[in-house]
Amino acid sequence: MTDLKAKFLEVYSVLKSDLLKDPDFEFTDDSRQWVEKMLDYNVPGGKLNRGLSVIDSLSLLNDGKELSPDEIFKASALGWCIEWLQAYFLVLDDIMDGSHTRRSQPCWYKLDKVGMIAINDGILLRNHITRILKKYFRPEPYYVDLLDLFNEVEFQTASGQMIDLITTLAGEKDLSKYSLSIHRRIVQYKTAYYSFYLPVACALLLAGENLDNHVDVKKILIDMGIYFQVQDDYLDCFADPEVLGKIGTDIQDFKCSWLVVKALELCNEEQKKILFENYGKDDAACIAKIKALYNDLKLEEVFLEYEKTSYENLTSSIAAHPSKAVQAVLLSFLGKIYKRQK
Amino acid sequence: MTDLKAKFLEVYSVLKSDLLKDPDFEFTDDSRQWVEKMLDYNVPGGKLNRGLSVIDSLSLLNDGKELSPDEIFKASALGWCIEWLQAYFLVLDDIMDGSHTRRSQPCWYKLDKVGMIAINDGILLRNHITRILKKYFRPEPYYVDLLDLFNEVEFQTASGQMIDLITTLAGEKDLSKYSLSIHRRIVQYKTAYYSFYLPVACALLLAGENLDNHVDVKKILIDMGIYFQVQDDYLDCFADPEVLGKIGTDIQDFKCSWLVVKALELCNEEQKKILFENYGKDDAACIAKIKALYNDLKLEEVFLEYEKTSYENLTSSIAAHPSKAVQAVLLSFLGKIYKRQK
Repeated sequence: MTDLKAKFLEVYSVLKSDLLKDPDFEFTDDSRQWVEKMLDYNVPGGKLNRGLSVIDSLSLLNDGKELSPDEIFKASALGWCIEWLQAYFLVLDDIMDGSHTRRSQPCWYKLDKVGMIAINDGILLRNHITRILKKYFRPEPYYVDLLDLFNEVEFQTASGQMIDLITTLAGEKDLSKYSLSIHRRIVQYKTAYYSFYLPVACALLLAGENLDNHVDVKKILIDMGIYFQVQDDYLDCFADPEVLGKIGTDIQDFKCSWLVVKALELCNEEQKKILFENYGKDDAACIAKIKALYNDLKLEEVFLEYEKTSYENLTSSIAAHPSKAVQAVLLSFLGKIYKRQK
Repeated sequence: MTDLKAKFLEVYSVLKSDLLKDPDFEFTDDSRQWVEKMLDYNVPGGKLNRGLSVIDSLSLLNDGKELSPDEIFKASALGWCIEWLQAYFLVLDDIMDGSHTRRSQPCWYKLDKVGMIAINDGILLRNHITRILKKYFRPEPYYVDLLDLFNEVEFQTASGQMIDLITTLAGEKDLSKYSLSIHRRIVQYKTAYYSFYLPVACALLLAGENLDNHVDVKKILIDMGIYFQVQDDYLDCFADPEVLGKIGTDIQDFKCSWLVVKALELCNEEQKKILFENYGKDDAACIAKIKALYNDLKLEEVFLEYEKTSYENLTSSIAAHPSKAVQAVLLSFLGKIYKRQK
């Protein structure tokens, strides 16, 4: 584990300990133990990329000057708020999707003692964010902007999730609902805002910036988030499972993947029939037919062309930004994802 | 329908229309229709007491002067935020409790097309509150206090719900976990803050008051909320079902009711055995044994004594408050619930 990550995890312990002695609630022993177990199970076990990137971004915005211990703590606390937000979404998404495992362990709601109590635990995770913000940021001039930011991003994420749920889980498996426009809305709202914009927006607020002056930064990060999710869809089908660390299941799961919406856009009538008849079926022959069609349509090349264009557009948008420090933040994000294999 | 209620419902239409054209999300036609249906199904169908009491309270705080149209609109908007909060809790609670009906219709999650999507709909309901607050209150000096207030009350409600869930739904049906202290915490956190304190706190903020100066008001309202919930527990068993409008099921549902914790407190060893053997069983003979025990322990008298003492304590706390206007608000709440039969 890197030194940075170890320090970040120390802040997790501080925040957890605060939450377990919150003066605005009278815990029973049972409920305090419940929350501690729930937090340890759901919050710190991910890759922590989103959380750590708040500290990275603030460092870059600080123009090479070293961050003070207070700045590092505050950036870490906001980084953890994003990890808490992610945990909240994942705990509830797993229930809605009927998932079995998450981060190589059973989903929280799948534990015998938990079940549907996981819904309330999800709510508690969301509420912990406002507890952390109040405890450490209430006196700051940007406190209200932080609340607005988390509220706005949560609203957009839940709205994107809604489109995803009613489009793809309607039980109807109606491929004619899928389009590039729907796909873009799902990934932009459900993923891009909280994964790409939120960490940088937190760092900008910590650096004393007004977010209203950074709509261009927001736009670039959202575009990057969309590109990231298109990569995800591509890798699900075309990556080596050994490298990816999992076997993709988007085809049988009837996911509104970039690949299937591209296929729908490029196919002729005969190929369209193949898509409608085989997509979303958990059957090896059906999956193979879809994959063969993707090859016929040269989707791998189409993706590489998309990736090239996205990269060019992103780098030129970044180069046009007036601040070198902001450019550095954006390039750091782009560098981490461009041509990724997993 | 009263004129006041009709006017209040007009504000619902305004808020709903705002939410359906929220500029921070790109609705699809399907998702806009989904949200509209979801709101109409879950938000306006209750008694609206909590929401209406914000307007009542602000009128009383205004010392007899008539409220301006803007004041009425703002009080109504905050009243609806409380109704939205209530809808959010109820939609999710019904899933966690496995309930079938709510407000004389099937629970939202029970509808064929909805199912577990109801979890995300609950989240959306919560997020609508912050959208409404931002649209109408962002320029107000008390905006940040409103956000803090809703955040704090939501946290307390979810924490109370947690104690309720892990104490009473643990599947273990362990009566020895029940006590007056647990009962008080559940009702105080799960119900009293959002049902009693929140409407008055909203009115106080609208009237330009600082909530830090009103901890005494908070304490009185919380005590009133606890008294209200004890009445609820009493009426569940002792009220005439014709008057109450429903048949109580707390005994067979193994609820942590004030009656059972009082019974546990007052019983001898033999009676305790009856409680442990019969409480929480959906069997007419078991229910009858519990009811007979409640009679043997004279719980009706114990309740009437509790009601008398609560009323005396509340009226004397209210009389000690320096502001006549605040006294009027508190007495109005007390008047609505004292000796209620349903």
